[in-house]
Amino acid sequence: MAITPPKGINLVPFVSVDHMMKLVLTLGIDRVLTGIAEFIESDFRRWELFDKTPRVASHSKEGVIELMPTSDGEVYGFKYVNGHPKNMKEGLQTVTAFGVLADVDSGYPLMLSEMTLLTALRTAATSAVAAKYLAPQNSKVMAIIGNGAQSEFQALAFKAILGIEELRLYDIDRVATEKCMRNLADYGLKMTACSSPEEAVEGAQIVTTVTADKQYATILTDNMVGAGIHINAIGGDCPGKTELHKDILLRSDIFVEYPPQTRIEGEIQQLPDDYPVNEIWEVMCGAKVGRKDARQITLFDSVGFAIEDFSALRFIYSQLKETGMFENLDMIADPDEPRDLFGMLLRASAQNNDLPSPTF
Amino acid sequence: MAITPPKGINLVPFVSVDHMMKLVLTLGIDRVLTGIAEFIESDFRRWELFDKTPRVASHSKEGVIELMPTSDGEVYGFKYVNGHPKNMKEGLQTVTAFGVLADVDSGYPLMLSEMTLLTALRTAATSAVAAKYLAPQNSKVMAIIGNGAQSEFQALAFKAILGIEELRLYDIDRVATEKCMRNLADYGLKMTACSSPEEAVEGAQIVTTVTADKQYATILTDNMVGAGIHINAIGGDCPGKTELHKDILLRSDIFVEYPPQTRIEGEIQQLPDDYPVNEIWEVMCGAKVGRKDARQITLFDSVGFAIEDFSALRFIYSQLKETGMFENLDMIADPDEPRDLFGMLLRASAQNNDLPSPTF
Repeated sequence: MAITPPKGINLVPFVSVDHMMKLVLTLGIDRVLTGIAEFIESDFRRWELFDKTPRVASHSKEGVIELMPTSDGEVYGFKYVNGHPKNMKEGLQTVTAFGVLADVDSGYPLMLSEMTLLTALRTAATSAVAAKYLAPQNSKVMAIIGNGAQSEFQALAFKAILGIEELRLYDIDRVATEKCMRNLADYGLKMTACSSPEEAVEGAQIVTTVTADKQYATILTDNMVGAGIHINAIGGDCPGKTELHKDILLRSDIFVEYPPQTRIEGEIQQLPDDYPVNEIWEVMCGAKVGRKDARQITLFDSVGFAIEDFSALRFIYSQLKETGMFENLDMIADPDEPRDLFGMLLRASAQNNDLPSPTF
Repeated sequence: MAITPPKGINLVPFVSVDHMMKLVLTLGIDRVLTGIAEFIESDFRRWELFDKTPRVASHSKEGVIELMPTSDGEVYGFKYVNGHPKNMKEGLQTVTAFGVLADVDSGYPLMLSEMTLLTALRTAATSAVAAKYLAPQNSKVMAIIGNGAQSEFQALAFKAILGIEELRLYDIDRVATEKCMRNLADYGLKMTACSSPEEAVEGAQIVTTVTADKQYATILTDNMVGAGIHINAIGGDCPGKTELHKDILLRSDIFVEYPPQTRIEGEIQQLPDDYPVNEIWEVMCGAKVGRKDARQITLFDSVGFAIEDFSALRFIYSQLKETGMFENLDMIADPDEPRDLFGMLLRASAQNNDLPSPTF
């Protein structure tokens, strides 16, 4: 990838929410999902190159604000993301995010982007990429338990990348299921609204759990999980929040993004610290086998990792020129002579006759 | 401080470099420096309230990219800052920065701001606030050794906050001294260009060292530092970079921002890990005495700390409404129904007839 600082080195391309929506609509959501998936797969295959700092969290009574940085040695990226479960009641997003790519060689930012939408896209793309290696061959039916903000993105990523044709939907709130079906009406997916999780998993080769409850919950019990199923568990993503009964974990081969993080935040927080798990990047590299046989239960215990955000930002950055979906922000002070930062201020005063001169 | 999320919750005020310059010119640089100094002093006085995460650094061959977060429990802030000494040769800034304030209760960003200029302002304000407690009474003469990008800001902060009237300037590069004198020509300071550090310190009550050499250097030797001097050491701010001879440290009472960081990055990296130092916030609280007598040598070993950036961002935020020096960025996705993120995309498509619908 040839990432070079923009011509006007003081200018940083900014992708607003509006531009992100237009970029997705212009390219088509399938191309965006498959494009992000390709960047994720290619970055996971060079996993060992990355600087894998743990996320830096600032906890408060109502939620958490996190910074998630990473770097491949050429490009640096970080995401700002909050998690405030009580926000929904106030009409605010539980999770909002923005991110930055920067050039490691100069330290200059390359792009600032909204990441609330982009996080939903990258989470879905990551799930679908993992499922390529873990789900039964020719999977056509997916259950989605939890039909909130992530569900449509999951559905479309699995359609675009795995060829899923049928969805079995369940949510504790029927309104959410109806919203999901309405939003997906024109995408050629067969959809069934189910009245229980048990009904939803019937005949599904893939079960995606993506509920928002911020506590230990049992969305799936052991008897609901038959041989050969792939479970894509997205909702358990912070300490104290899980979705699966522990017995399911004990019957599954477990695949994770980054064990030090997943052991704290994922389903496997229910298991001993040394319980064996597989890293999905090793499967993508060919160093480990994903699905071995038709009766195996595979579990992708996904909590989200900084490299996925990095890959998603790289994909968006690669599309900026073609789509033009950005504006330039005057974000970096750039005096003609680097040591003359103060002189830049004086010249700004001279050029703006309506402004007072910078005297006392 | 009443910080409330902006009306349009998707919009985040952004202070560009141009707006920052205009804000400084509109308010006057003295009001900005004293305003930031007041916020720093008030935040240092409630030091123990703050979440003091160490900075998160990503090192590379040519430099470092750092994230510096902190929070007082109500407001969260972080700064992105790089340090690339080789940049200057390429006509780029060695240090560029931007920062964000966010509302802890909702996790929503409150402001995005350029911080290259703002960092120079806050560094100078911090130096001058510390000197209020440490410099000899009625100091009128300051030596500045190193006349690069920071020097004018230091000079003006000490004039505004301490009443400094005379500068004695020295730089290894005479061009830098000339630039500094030219930039400060209209500020009513008596200035002398000196041909050696020894000449510069003659008759100065305060000696500011602010050189850029990225190595162990000896800008001041022991015999140059007479009784009663206050040394404001700014330039030694990363591992392996110092400005003062160790013997000076041994004769001084040393004051620092945050010992765990200063012991790695400051002048005191030359001393044993348990060498006694004073925290400047304790002096500002009245728990410790700053200057005790007229013959004491005081040293402020400053490396810059996240709370100073937080204070500077808070000051700028407090001036947004009055000055109007910002634009709103559409940075936060805000669907009417929080769970309907995908529906927002569909509605954007419906509203933009020139865009393709989000089908495959």
